[in-house]
Amino acid sequence: MESSRAERLLSNAEGIDAVVIANGGEPFLDSTFWYLTELNSGVFEGSFAIAGPNGLHIIVSQLEEEAANAGKGEVHVFRTREERDNAIKEALRGCSKVGFNVGCVPYNMVRYVERTAEIEVQDATAAIDATVSVKDAKEIEATRKACRISSQVAGEIPDMLSEGVSEKEVAARMDSRMRELGGTGNAFDTIAAFGAYSSEPHHTPCDYRLRKGDTALFDFGTKYDRYCSDMTRTVFLGRPPEILERAYQVVKEAQEAGIAEYRDGADASVADKAARAVIDATEFEGRFIHSFGHGIGMDVHQAISVSYRSEQRLKAGNIVSAEPGIYIPGVGGIRIEDTCLITEKGCEILTSFDHSFTVV
Amino acid sequence: MESSRAERLLSNAEGIDAVVIANGGEPFLDSTFWYLTELNSGVFEGSFAIAGPNGLHIIVSQLEEEAANAGKGEVHVFRTREERDNAIKEALRGCSKVGFNVGCVPYNMVRYVERTAEIEVQDATAAIDATVSVKDAKEIEATRKACRISSQVAGEIPDMLSEGVSEKEVAARMDSRMRELGGTGNAFDTIAAFGAYSSEPHHTPCDYRLRKGDTALFDFGTKYDRYCSDMTRTVFLGRPPEILERAYQVVKEAQEAGIAEYRDGADASVADKAARAVIDATEFEGRFIHSFGHGIGMDVHQAISVSYRSEQRLKAGNIVSAEPGIYIPGVGGIRIEDTCLITEKGCEILTSFDHSFTVV
Repeated sequence: MESSRAERLLSNAEGIDAVVIANGGEPFLDSTFWYLTELNSGVFEGSFAIAGPNGLHIIVSQLEEEAANAGKGEVHVFRTREERDNAIKEALRGCSKVGFNVGCVPYNMVRYVERTAEIEVQDATAAIDATVSVKDAKEIEATRKACRISSQVAGEIPDMLSEGVSEKEVAARMDSRMRELGGTGNAFDTIAAFGAYSSEPHHTPCDYRLRKGDTALFDFGTKYDRYCSDMTRTVFLGRPPEILERAYQVVKEAQEAGIAEYRDGADASVADKAARAVIDATEFEGRFIHSFGHGIGMDVHQAISVSYRSEQRLKAGNIVSAEPGIYIPGVGGIRIEDTCLITEKGCEILTSFDHSFTVV
Repeated sequence: MESSRAERLLSNAEGIDAVVIANGGEPFLDSTFWYLTELNSGVFEGSFAIAGPNGLHIIVSQLEEEAANAGKGEVHVFRTREERDNAIKEALRGCSKVGFNVGCVPYNMVRYVERTAEIEVQDATAAIDATVSVKDAKEIEATRKACRISSQVAGEIPDMLSEGVSEKEVAARMDSRMRELGGTGNAFDTIAAFGAYSSEPHHTPCDYRLRKGDTALFDFGTKYDRYCSDMTRTVFLGRPPEILERAYQVVKEAQEAGIAEYRDGADASVADKAARAVIDATEFEGRFIHSFGHGIGMDVHQAISVSYRSEQRLKAGNIVSAEPGIYIPGVGGIRIEDTCLITEKGCEILTSFDHSFTVV
């Protein structure tokens, strides 16, 4: 049996005879495994997907046998270490230069395959990224559904806020709503950051309770059929310090400037630079301390870097975030983020919520 | 500044000069990073925690600076690749044999440190496992809270079941309830498996709707302050085929037999063998296709393998699952699972629910 996704990957992997995708234990699971096999069930710890000259091989323990049979590829079930060794040698027969997803595979799994099959380890990251970052219709549809669900929750945020509610409580409510609306799980741990905590881009929700004048920043997303949405909405409980109102307008303008540069064929760095120029031309110079965006897929951070240092070029079918921010330690932070689909002519914003300065 | 956890790790790591914990991108984050730093906030993609002769060093990008300062260890913030290189060289000055958590670190991160600091890569898995698997009072308390939350939801399962409800719907409801009750996120994707699907140990919830006579198996857990609970309850909507009622009683007896072998100083393999002997003495011989248990901590599968092949010895302070199962393809599966704390004299079962054969 053959998988067209596996073929596309190999055609992108110049000078590489085969690509090995290897899962460690939870959470060290490579989404490329599900991409290639098109499986929808199972955990597949310690499993392998090998795309080589004689097709796609799925090598799994007995525990995953039933689940594995539902996907693309030829399934090999091992009961012992020796059976696993043999399945890997067989799948890599005649291959010498073997590529790995070196940023998404445990060190010991690569060394194991290297020793067992006596192959030369190659970096297949570029080929994998080029393959998974151009989404097909089925992937776009799943992402669209994930974005619809989280967008509805974004619209409900103001109703969840009142003086004294904690970050943890609102995050829990948002997660519940995304599941109720059909999301199959969080795309990542929801960030709810109030007041000064919002100046930490990756704050973990704590017991801090919302007060009048506080910023309330929410960065969240859901999965639908394994595909992620990613969005950030920042609102305020009562009028915030004026500096944050000014920051909000600057971030909003920066996001628009960056998104205007999203289109097939554009250098990814251009969008970051356009947004950064807006922020750095104001009193908030230097306060945009991360990049403008990243690829989104089965992982919420995938394949594409939209940074001023990026050397990647955008392609129709890429799905990327657009998320400028301004962070003022001790005062608060603002971030506005959407999930965007790159198209021939520009981009389609898949998430939706009221982007205007909102005081609850 | 010094961290006693880092010191404990080094004292367990004979022949190793320093241990490097390195995070890739989400989800390739090593919980050992949070264990050593005792940080509670932040994502820390691409960050390092290095325990060496001159203390614990935390090396992070600017994005995580504010969050990093709340933990143990000396924080080094890098803005460029060169600054990162230098921070790593500095933290590893004078070290030659450097250990890694080779099953939980991306291949390219190890190769990067190896080249940058010119060190010799060692496998520190045994030292890390020995350290993180013995929980302190704070860790046990967090696990206890996680277990209390999921146990309450286990008790609510019968009320969530009726003819026609789908696996996805019940899983979503359970996840919502765990969040409402104070859980800070799923320990893993909830498994809800009805009817014949329950014979796949790692089934992913689908749109299948519950019918009279179906098994309904739920494997789930929550996090509380990063620590996981893990439990499985199997019930039935209406009387199931008799073979499943017999299987239920055998699994229950097997779990009791295994748990009876849980105590400080016992070989981990003994519990698995005891449970397996119960099952293999019946018509269900060979249908228990996974191991009896695994360590539980900040990762839901951590450090300890309770399998008949295991060569580990249990210690007071270990937290492990007890989860025998019987799987009959095309008919259904039964699994009963608790989270257990190993003590001097035996074990304390941290999860609780009605283990008797339950027809809803």
